[in-house]
Amino acid sequence: MINAFCKKPLWECSKTLVAVAQGRTPADTVIKGAKLVNVCTGEVQEGIDVAIAEGRIAYLGTADHCVGEGTRIIDAEGQCIAPGFLDGHIHVESSMMGAGEYARAVVPHGTTGIYWDPHEVCNVLGLDGVRLMAEDARRTPLKAMITTPSCVPAVPGFEDTGSSIGPEDIAETMNWQNVVGLGEMMNFPGILSGADHAHGEVAETLRAGKTATGHYSLPETDRGLNAYIASGVRCCHESTRPEDALAKMRLGMYAQLRFGSAWQDLPVLAEAVASGGIDTRFANLVSDDTHPHTLVADGHLDHIVRTAVSLGIDAVSAIQMVTINCAQCFQMDHDLGSITPGKCADIVFLDDLESLRVTRVLIDGEVVAEDGRALFDLPPYRYPDWATRSVHLGREIAPTSFEVAAPEGIVDGDTVRVRAIEVVPGKVGTFEAHVDLPVANGRLESAVEQDVLKAFVFERHRETGTFGKGFVKGFGIKRGAMASTVAHDAHNLLVLGTNDEDMALAANTLAACGGGMVVVADGEVLGLVELPIAGLMDALPAEEMSAKVHALEDAWAAIGCTMPSPFMTMALIPLACLPELRLTNRGLVDCTKFEFADLIVG
Amino acid sequence: MINAFCKKPLWECSKTLVAVAQGRTPADTVIKGAKLVNVCTGEVQEGIDVAIAEGRIAYLGTADHCVGEGTRIIDAEGQCIAPGFLDGHIHVESSMMGAGEYARAVVPHGTTGIYWDPHEVCNVLGLDGVRLMAEDARRTPLKAMITTPSCVPAVPGFEDTGSSIGPEDIAETMNWQNVVGLGEMMNFPGILSGADHAHGEVAETLRAGKTATGHYSLPETDRGLNAYIASGVRCCHESTRPEDALAKMRLGMYAQLRFGSAWQDLPVLAEAVASGGIDTRFANLVSDDTHPHTLVADGHLDHIVRTAVSLGIDAVSAIQMVTINCAQCFQMDHDLGSITPGKCADIVFLDDLESLRVTRVLIDGEVVAEDGRALFDLPPYRYPDWATRSVHLGREIAPTSFEVAAPEGIVDGDTVRVRAIEVVPGKVGTFEAHVDLPVANGRLESAVEQDVLKAFVFERHRETGTFGKGFVKGFGIKRGAMASTVAHDAHNLLVLGTNDEDMALAANTLAACGGGMVVVADGEVLGLVELPIAGLMDALPAEEMSAKVHALEDAWAAIGCTMPSPFMTMALIPLACLPELRLTNRGLVDCTKFEFADLIVG
Repeated sequence: MINAFCKKPLWECSKTLVAVAQGRTPADTVIKGAKLVNVCTGEVQEGIDVAIAEGRIAYLGTADHCVGEGTRIIDAEGQCIAPGFLDGHIHVESSMMGAGEYARAVVPHGTTGIYWDPHEVCNVLGLDGVRLMAEDARRTPLKAMITTPSCVPAVPGFEDTGSSIGPEDIAETMNWQNVVGLGEMMNFPGILSGADHAHGEVAETLRAGKTATGHYSLPETDRGLNAYIASGVRCCHESTRPEDALAKMRLGMYAQLRFGSAWQDLPVLAEAVASGGIDTRFANLVSDDTHPHTLVADGHLDHIVRTAVSLGIDAVSAIQMVTINCAQCFQMDHDLGSITPGKCADIVFLDDLESLRVTRVLIDGEVVAEDGRALFDLPPYRYPDWATRSVHLGREIAPTSFEVAAPEGIVDGDTVRVRAIEVVPGKVGTFEAHVDLPVANGRLESAVEQDVLKAFVFERHRETGTFGKGFVKGFGIKRGAMASTVAHDAHNLLVLGTNDEDMALAANTLAACGGGMVVVADGEVLGLVELPIAGLMDALPAEEMSAKVHALEDAWAAIGCTMPSPFMTMALIPLACLPELRLTNRGLVDCTKFEFADLIVG
Repeated sequence: MINAFCKKPLWECSKTLVAVAQGRTPADTVIKGAKLVNVCTGEVQEGIDVAIAEGRIAYLGTADHCVGEGTRIIDAEGQCIAPGFLDGHIHVESSMMGAGEYARAVVPHGTTGIYWDPHEVCNVLGLDGVRLMAEDARRTPLKAMITTPSCVPAVPGFEDTGSSIGPEDIAETMNWQNVVGLGEMMNFPGILSGADHAHGEVAETLRAGKTATGHYSLPETDRGLNAYIASGVRCCHESTRPEDALAKMRLGMYAQLRFGSAWQDLPVLAEAVASGGIDTRFANLVSDDTHPHTLVADGHLDHIVRTAVSLGIDAVSAIQMVTINCAQCFQMDHDLGSITPGKCADIVFLDDLESLRVTRVLIDGEVVAEDGRALFDLPPYRYPDWATRSVHLGREIAPTSFEVAAPEGIVDGDTVRVRAIEVVPGKVGTFEAHVDLPVANGRLESAVEQDVLKAFVFERHRETGTFGKGFVKGFGIKRGAMASTVAHDAHNLLVLGTNDEDMALAANTLAACGGGMVVVADGEVLGLVELPIAGLMDALPAEEMSAKVHALEDAWAAIGCTMPSPFMTMALIPLACLPELRLTNRGLVDCTKFEFADLIVG
C-alpha cells in the first residue's frame, strides 16, 4: 500500500537519502549515541547514530560523515530509541476531543500513527464528519490513518442514526488518500450468515488492496472464528481470554490485545504471549477507547507497553507489538514500524527499557514532543455549524414527555412487572432484570428504593420525533437526572432520571448546547460537559477535558452514584449489538434474539 | 497487493468459505489428522483437519462437519503439513528448461510459488520473451510471480544484448497481472551514485506499490549498504558472510540466504540465524540458480530446508523462511505463506520434520504432486520461431575468425605478455593473470602447457558483427574447443579452444542449432546440449535435461577438464558486473574500474 502519510513518498527522495548515507549530502538531523531497539531482529544495539533527511531515515551506524553545517544534532546520551508507536485500533471520539487535540495528547506518549475508526462521528455526521475530523488531524504531525466505519448503523432496523454506510461508500472511501482499510467489522453475525452487506464491505476493501479490521467478540473460537477470518478480516481487538488471542494468532489473525480506559483485556491476555513459547509477530497492543483522564494521568501506548512489561512480556517484544507487528498487519512496514533506512523517521526516545518513559518523539524527522509536551500548537479547529449543531430533536421536550402510562386496566396502587436494563460497573454487558413498579396517577415511575430509573432515548439526527422508553437498574442514583448525546452507537439523546422535571431539564440543557453529558438535580445543573462537535467531542486540550469530566463524575457522585466513570456505563445503554437488553429510539431491544421487547413482562 | 495467482480472489469466494467453515456447505477437500507446522506462532499442532473450498482454506480444527458427499478426504496419517514453499529469488533459465517443465520439476519438491527474475531471457528476447515464458508457466499450477528484470543490459556500454530495459518498461510491466516487483537491482553502483536509470526503475516499482528486490554483493555493510536499502530495495540474496546477512536484517532488509547449485552461501550464513538469539522474520531461503541435475538429484526448496536444518536451524524456523517470511517480504501474506483461513490452499505434506521428505503437494486445493512426481502433464510448449532462432551472428565464422595477431614489431619466437582471465572452480569471481605467450606465424595462440586458451565472444542478437577476443586460464583443457550461448548476462556466443578449427566448429554447431552448449575435439562434436529457446533453454523434462548435461560434462572431462560443472564457470567469463577481468563482445573489461582493458600488458 502506498502511504499518503509520509512527508514524501520514498521514491521522490531516495536519491537524497542515498547521498546522505554516503556522506555526500549532509543530513537534516543526526541522532547520536542511542541504544537502538531493533524490532527487526529483536535486539538492542548500543551506540547507534541515526541520520535523517527528507523526513526519512538515511543511515544507521556511526554518522559523523552525515553531519554538515546545517545538521541538527540530537545527543541521545545513551537513551533508547524505538520506532514510533502505532495503535492498530482506536476511536478518537472516545477521548471526547477533536482529532487535533487528540494528537496533541497522544504524540508526547510516543504515538506517531493511529489506525482509527471514526465510527462515532460517522453515525452522527456521516462521511462528511469523517472528512472534517481528518482535516483537523491533518494539521498535526500524527499519522491519522483512517479505517472506514463498517457498521453504521450498528444494528440496522433497531435504531436511527444520522447516516448509513454500505459497500458503495466503502468502495468510494478506499480511493481517499487517508483511508487504509475498513473499520472494525462488528457485524460478525452478518459475516457468518453470508450477508451481502457485510461481505460487500469487506470485498470492496480487499479489492482495493487494503486491510479489513475486525471485531469478533464471541467466545467461540472454532467454526465461527474460522469462518470470520476466512472472510478476509485480518485483525481483532475483542479477545477477552488468552485462548481467544492464541486461537486468533494460530489462525493467522493479528490479535490486538486491548488496554483502554474501560476495556482492559491485556492483564488477562498477556499470558498468551508472555511465555516466550510462541512467535509473537501476530500480536499487537491497542487502546480502542481511551478517555481524557487516562491520557492525562497514565498515557497512551507508552502506558500500554509499560503494562505489558509489568505483566511479564519482554520489553522488546512489547515494543514490536506497537511497531513492526502493527505495520505488518496493515502491510505498511515499507514505510512504518522500524528504524531502518528508507522508513519514515518516526522515532521515540525512552529513558530506558525499565521505566519506558518517553522523553522525546520525532515524526517525519521533526521533534514533535519533548518531556511529555507536544511541540505543535494548534488554534482550535473551527468546526462548521452543521457539525456543532447536530442535536435535531424535532420536538419540544417537557416534563410530560417522560410520562410512562400504566397498562390499561391497572389501577393506582397495583404493581406492574417491567423489563429493566441492569447495568454492571465496568462491564459492557447488561442483564434483563424484571422489576415490580407501583402505579401512581395511572403511570409508572422511577423507583429509587429499588435503584430503578426511567430511561428515554430520543432520536436526534433527522427530527423523526421517535423515542424509546424503558427502565434501568443499578446506577445507585437517589435524585435528579442525567442526559447524554454520547450514547452508542447511534448517539441519540439518552435521558435517565428520578423525576420528569429534572429529566426534561437535562435533555433541554444538552439540546441547547449542541450535545454533551449533563447531571442535574432539583432544577439545577450540577455538572455539564459540553460536546458540541457532533454531540461527542469538544476542541479542548486533554487537561481541560479531563478536568471537566472529573467535575461531571463529582456531580454523579453528588446524586448518589459511586460507580467509576458512570457516564461510560450509561453510554452503553443503547448499544443494541451487545447482550442482553438495550434501549434505542425505537424501543427496548432483546439483544440475544435481535427482537424488540415489550416493556411490560407477560 | 492483489494477487493474480490464486484460483479466485478471496472476495469472490469468501461467502462460500464462511459457509464451509460452519458446515453449511460441504468442503471440496478435507485433510484429516495432520501435524500442522503453524508458521504464524511457530508451533507444531497435532491432529489438525483442514477444510478447503474454492482453492482456499476455509477451516482448521476438527472438520467432520465440513464433509459432504462430494468431499474428497485426504488422510494425512499423522504426516506434517506446511504452507507451500516460496522461493523469493530464482532464475528459471538456469535450469535450462522452459518454465512449464521447470514447474514440473520443482512442484513435487514442495515449491508452490516462485518470485522469478526472467533476466536471462529478457537479455536475449526482451519483454516478449518474458511474456512467452510466463505463458508457458501459466499452463501449470505453480505460482510463477514475475519480478521484472532491472538490469538489461547488466553493464551498459560494455556489452550488447538483445534488449534493454528502462524505467518506462518497468512502469509498463507493473501493470501486468503477473508482475509483483522488480528483479534484482544489480546496478548497486548506479543506486549508490544516484543514477536516474537505476533510481527510476525502483521508483516505478514503489509507485506501483510493489516490491523491489536486490543484489548487493559488496562486503561493505556500512554506508553503501545503508544507502542501497534507503533506495527502497527490500531484499537481497548476495550475502556471503554471516555478518552480511545480519547487517541486512538489522537494517530491515530481507536476507535471502542462498543455496543454489553453484552459489551455496547457506552453510556459512546459517550461523547468523541458527543461534536462536534473534528474531528471524527477516530471513528467507532462496535458490537463485538451480541446474537440472540438482533438481533431479537433490530437490529444490525441500533440499534447502533440509540443509538449513542440518546446519542447526530449527525446522519450524527454516520452514518460516520459505513460507510466511517470504510472503511478508512481498506483502502477499494475505494470500500466501500460511495455512490459515482465507489463504490459498497451497500445502506441502512432509513425512516428518527430521527427514523433511515431501510426499504430496497441493496448490489452490488440488493435489498437484505425489511421491516426487508432478500430477500435471504438459505437451511441450510451442515456442515461436523468433524465440527458437535467436542466434544472429551476421557473419560467417571460420577458423580464420579466431586469429589473434601479435603486436606490430614482434617477431616469431618472441613472447608477448597478455592479460588472461583466470577462473577458479566453483567461484563467481575471476582474476587478472598475466601470461607470456609465444608468437608463431605473427599470431598469438592458445598455450595448453600453460593452461591458457583463446576466448572469443561474438555478438549474436542484432548482427552487429562485433566480437571481443582474449585468453582464459584455468580450465585444464588439453585439446578441442567449447562454445556456449549461455554466457552471462548478454548471452552472446562464447567460444574457448585450443585450436582455430575446433573453435569454428563449436561456434558453427551452435549457430546451426539455435544455441546451447557444445564440446568438440579433432573436428568432432563430443557433447552437445541444444538450447533452442533463446539459446538458453529447451522444453525438455528435468530428467532428460539432466542426462544431457551429464553427457556434456563427460565431454569436458574427455578433453581434460576435471572441474565440477565447468560450463557454469565458463558461462561467467563475460559477466562484466563482477570483478576482476571479463570478456564481452566489445572486448576485455577491467571490472574493478569499469574500463576496457588492453589485451597486451604494458
